Amino acid sequence: MRLMSFTVAGRPSFGAAIGDGVVDLGRRLGGRAASLKAFLAAGPALMAEARAIARPETVDHKLAALRFLPVIPDPGKIVCVGLNYRDHVAEAAGRDVTEKPVIFARFAESQTGHLEPLVKPRASDKLDYEGEMAVIIGTAGRHISEAAALGHVAGYACYNEGSVRDWQRHTHQYTPGKNFAATGGFGPWMVTADEIPDPTRLTLTTRLNGEVVQKSGTDLMIFPIPEVIAYVSTFTPLAPGDVILTGTPGGVGSRRTPPVWLKAGDTVEVEISGIGTLVNTVAAEA
Amino acid sequence: MRLMSFTVAGRPSFGAAIGDGVVDLGRRLGGRAASLKAFLAAGPALMAEARAIARPETVDHKLAALRFLPVIPDPGKIVCVGLNYRDHVAEAAGRDVTEKPVIFARFAESQTGHLEPLVKPRASDKLDYEGEMAVIIGTAGRHISEAAALGHVAGYACYNEGSVRDWQRHTHQYTPGKNFAATGGFGPWMVTADEIPDPTRLTLTTRLNGEVVQKSGTDLMIFPIPEVIAYVSTFTPLAPGDVILTGTPGGVGSRRTPPVWLKAGDTVEVEISGIGTLVNTVAAEA
Repeated sequence: MRLMSFTVAGRPSFGAAIGDGVVDLGRRLGGRAASLKAFLAAGPALMAEARAIARPETVDHKLAALRFLPVIPDPGKIVCVGLNYRDHVAEAAGRDVTEKPVIFARFAESQTGHLEPLVKPRASDKLDYEGEMAVIIGTAGRHISEAAALGHVAGYACYNEGSVRDWQRHTHQYTPGKNFAATGGFGPWMVTADEIPDPTRLTLTTRLNGEVVQKSGTDLMIFPIPEVIAYVSTFTPLAPGDVILTGTPGGVGSRRTPPVWLKAGDTVEVEISGIGTLVNTVAAEA
Repeated sequence: MRLMSFTVAGRPSFGAAIGDGVVDLGRRLGGRAASLKAFLAAGPALMAEARAIARPETVDHKLAALRFLPVIPDPGKIVCVGLNYRDHVAEAAGRDVTEKPVIFARFAESQTGHLEPLVKPRASDKLDYEGEMAVIIGTAGRHISEAAALGHVAGYACYNEGSVRDWQRHTHQYTPGKNFAATGGFGPWMVTADEIPDPTRLTLTTRLNGEVVQKSGTDLMIFPIPEVIAYVSTFTPLAPGDVILTGTPGGVGSRRTPPVWLKAGDTVEVEISGIGTLVNTVAAEA
């Protein structure tokens, strides 16, 4: 199932994307879940009900008639893994592969939906793309073992972990450059984990104005998803709707010669095989 | 006014502390705000109503009869400033004063209330205290000027920004060591900004088992509160209930000779003049 969040006629909801339409689960489940996060938290009975409802003949809206929200607009936390592909570590001058995952956080306000603007801030001309695979947690847990980790995953999605490089490097902590409003594209939907039996067998491709700028198998993560979930859940409880961003491969704009910075009108696509393609066009901050 | 969050007979609420009791605003405002965060977001009319209600004769519960929650149990974000006092920068080997604030994040799950346990994790024996002043945002804003910044502050509170030092230094990013569950004491209440006309004229004192281990004027912050608010709101919108932690002065346990690590049974107090005293006793993770 492809689960997504959206607004239709200004009303926020969530649903199951089927073909060029969506089944409005927010409405059809009679308000028993106010958001996709709440739906995931409600557990397997409501999920089974949604699976029974979501059929081509029950499509409520055309995708073209709605606006995409970030897949999870209001995650309790967004945990990001940095420097998790060797080719990206190699291009990141002065960085080495670490013994433990590099972890930082994004805030919900830094997100933007599929086909919504990726906002280049007034404060900087150094906005960069980072195509990544997002993991959405479905089942709460703490001290999750690697063996049990994938059982806590609700699904997977495309993410553009947009980064403002000068603000990322104001100090040794990345947070400011990773949190400009509407720099993190998240969509179009999450594909539920039952359809992705092995998340290491996917191909992640980022295109800038149609040209491939990043391409990697997800098997090349230095810290695979189960190891990241085990590590993160050692310090913090994971909850339904929490998002883990698994890092970007080599090819980011800031490490090109000359550097490539996103400017208004540029289009960035993040495609993951078996999941979909996230598309955002860059707009200057108003 | 002293605003706090609590549970009474298992029911979460918030209220105004007066003497040894609390006026239960969650109940008396008839559910118009479900939490202190929602109350702050509701704006000045509801605040004025609360001020009219909160009197010694309307106290609903003895403080001794309730459990303290973190002042804001569910902040949209917790933005932390690192290395913001010169004596702490000096003791932090290899660190210098930065040109911009060092910013990292805590998740809500890392918090604990006044008189609740500060949890020493199984994963580490290197839990340390950090007495800090917390700033709670009352009025939303982006691109807030330094001149306007204090007008966005709802109030101030004591925070013990408990840090697990080995996990903080697993890599160059602090996040894991700053986010162990129930390591961040936040309480007992926030004092509204009208009672703190100048937040630079306070004294912050941390005591470990009764002995003073940190003591500083809040005028010694390298980046004063208005500068931090202006910087942070350049990249992210600030919302009611957001928490900014303003950094810890010198005297942390990890930089003592020999180092001092918190162990089960230790009591840490963070006192700020004009605000109150946060008390937590350390308990080992179950």
